[in-house]
Amino acid sequence: MTLDDLIQRLRDFAAARDWEPFHTPKNLAMALSGEVGELTALFQWLTPEESAKALDDPQLKADILDELADVLLYLTRLADVLGVDLLDAASAKIDRNELRFPPLPTAD
Amino acid sequence: MTLDDLIQRLRDFAAARDWEPFHTPKNLAMALSGEVGELTALFQWLTPEESAKALDDPQLKADILDELADVLLYLTRLADVLGVDLLDAASAKIDRNELRFPPLPTAD
Amino acid sequence: MTLDDLIQRLRDFAAARDWEPFHTPKNLAMALSGEVGELTALFQWLTPEESAKALDDPQLKADILDELADVLLYLTRLADVLGVDLLDAASAKIDRNELRFPPLPTAD
Amino acid sequence: MTLDDLIQRLRDFAAARDWEPFHTPKNLAMALSGEVGELTALFQWLTPEESAKALDDPQLKADILDELADVLLYLTRLADVLGVDLLDAASAKIDRNELRFPPLPTAD
Repeated sequence: MTLDDLIQRLRDFAAARDWEPFHTPKNLAMALSGEVGELTALFQWLTPEESAKALDDPQLKADILDELADVLLYLTRLADVLGVDLLDAASAKIDRNELRFPPLPTAD
Repeated sequence: MTLDDLIQRLRDFAAARDWEPFHTPKNLAMALSGEVGELTALFQWLTPEESAKALDDPQLKADILDELADVLLYLTRLADVLGVDLLDAASAKIDRNELRFPPLPTAD
Repeated sequence: MTLDDLIQRLRDFAAARDWEPFHTPKNLAMALSGEVGELTALFQWLTPEESAKALDDPQLKADILDELADVLLYLTRLADVLGVDLLDAASAKIDRNELRFPPLPTAD
Repeated sequence: MTLDDLIQRLRDFAAARDWEPFHTPKNLAMALSGEVGELTALFQWLTPEESAKALDDPQLKADILDELADVLLYLTRLADVLGVDLLDAASAKIDRNELRFPPLPTAD
């Protein structure tokens, strides 16, 4: 599945359930925010080192995959209803970040 | 640019700045949460109807694209350091949602 | 119960469970963020008008009170472990806001 | 200043600026979410140990106090427009938590 496939599946999903009226950018931003809150909560009591091994725990792994998926679903849907190409926006942002944060000099 | 290209650009970006030690899942989840907060703030005083036309305002459009990009950057990086395939996780989640929320009957 | 009483109850609660080592500002900020995500989710599909009547629904009322409480608990605990007086900080912020956003002229 | 004083100052502040129509629970939940995102961002690259000493840095201290204040302002305003007594809700929640998480046995 590509990101374009995901956009289409989410359009079909909303249409088949008459959910389109609820999918305003304001509402979707709130839904995205709620899912990121659930994702953050999974890491809140872990040390940074423990968080790097979080997928070793099968239940925690399932929960993390579930929340990462939810975040991508709402982010993709939000960008789609706004008419924004997410990958173009991300590419342009990395270009700006490369100017803003110059890389370390390489030793040679 | 595909999502795979984005993953690679973010790896190169972090490596060139020695930022990898900071990119624990715990820290990246917090960074994601902060960016989603900034995105949500852009819509907070708009009505749902106004939010649907947010891109008509050039400054607001630039801010929204910037924040959507940041959210995708941190989400992609977080999934990558965890070793999670985001699109696979999203596809599996839609499959589960299709069982959980049956579509409306079609008239025919 | 005053806010000072709440601070003390939270100290006693953490001490009686040996939770103090987990209550770093970083972890508590994440916990706060997670609870605010849950609170936001309760309003995500409501119109602004419906949100103003949310407490008319007994189940939604119970959920909202529960999440508002959780947000205050973590905010209070976070301020306490940092050594910040929340009400002083809030008072100073309103003072700044009064300069930043002048009131409308009164008609007289 | 008590929490009751804060509630009154926020009422007066909104009234003097004709901001009351914007202060729906939905909008205020989003504003709260945005401020918590900014607060979380202040801790995102710190280790838990560094976060415990965050107030030693004067600029970071000022930023943290500012964001903690903003979170309390929006939380207080949100509870007020809903008609919820925050301290009562928090007290009831701690009562429930005391049953849900029994304290450790004391050695004697």
